Amino acid sequence: MREPLTIRRYQAGDWPSVWSILHHAFSTGDTYAFAPESTEAEVHNIWIEGPQATYVACSSDVGIFGTYILKPNQPGLGSHVCNCGYVVGPAARGKGIGAAMCEHSQNAARSLGFRSMQFNLVVSTNTGAVHLWQKLGFSIVGTLPGAFQHKVHGDVDAYVMFKHLAANRQLNQAPEPTASSGRGSS
Amino acid sequence: MREPLTIRRYQAGDWPSVWSILHHAFSTGDTYAFAPESTEAEVHNIWIEGPQATYVACSSDVGIFGTYILKPNQPGLGSHVCNCGYVVGPAARGKGIGAAMCEHSQNAARSLGFRSMQFNLVVSTNTGAVHLWQKLGFSIVGTLPGAFQHKVHGDVDAYVMFKHLAANRQLNQAPEPTASSGRGSS
Repeated sequence: MREPLTIRRYQAGDWPSVWSILHHAFSTGDTYAFAPESTEAEVHNIWIEGPQATYVACSSDVGIFGTYILKPNQPGLGSHVCNCGYVVGPAARGKGIGAAMCEHSQNAARSLGFRSMQFNLVVSTNTGAVHLWQKLGFSIVGTLPGAFQHKVHGDVDAYVMFKHLAANRQLNQAPEPTASSGRGSS
Repeated sequence: MREPLTIRRYQAGDWPSVWSILHHAFSTGDTYAFAPESTEAEVHNIWIEGPQATYVACSSDVGIFGTYILKPNQPGLGSHVCNCGYVVGPAARGKGIGAAMCEHSQNAARSLGFRSMQFNLVVSTNTGAVHLWQKLGFSIVGTLPGAFQHKVHGDVDAYVMFKHLAANRQLNQAPEPTASSGRGSS
């Protein structure tokens, strides 16, 4: 990737690339709870139809190499807290895409009126993601014992991570990649 | 209530009673995140169509005075952990109905193959429920800062509560009420 990173709203034509990235990520069974055998229709529902907004990270020379979703974490009286999930394609790891998407999502969330962001199930063995979220201002506020059936390690703990979103950033300004890549969280 | 407490699966004819109980509980805005202004159709979707199972607590002389739902808390690799929500009607509080439903739900969950139970948003000011869940074996495993917009107190913390379900109880045996009532949790 030599061209600048762009993070923008998902468009219907992006689906083949997004599905390819998600299918790979979910099938590994080490990061997301979504069933590894989820069908394309199920994943479309999870990633496109369900969330309030879906974004893609792309460049003009490489195309789409990451995607994230943004939605309220709870209805009504809990809807000021949002939830996001991020996936970076295998060829684009280690380039700060996860960090860039997380920074972008915080700005997007503020613009949509959210006041905090919560990740409900950060797999404890996914240490790269845990450290990245901590570096980006998230705290581990809870530990769920054995709550994730890891494909390799069996039942492992998962973390609940949380961040208050101060109203100090502008949207429409994709941050530059600043950290090693990470995937994870919903 | 003089007749014995029965806890059984929900049937379509129960809806008017269940809706009345839920409408009152949600509209108070102090326990559940569901929007206080939720419509009957929205609540039917939340309580009947969405969950894996819905139960009612009733007696032959009084009718239905409580209800709870049971569902996986996460998809796929997190689906061994279930989630429940309990509501007791205002006239039946303080009679141990919340405790009886929670005990029943743990047995129901074991029978359905769940290994743990998690409450995602126990409102911290709902101290009766927090203490009841602790008495019934749940631990506070996380604190979500300001995650609940309390109708009276404004933003208040919410707890994540968790319990491993040991395989030591039989279903189809409604426990007797044993503790002061409580509502809460999803």
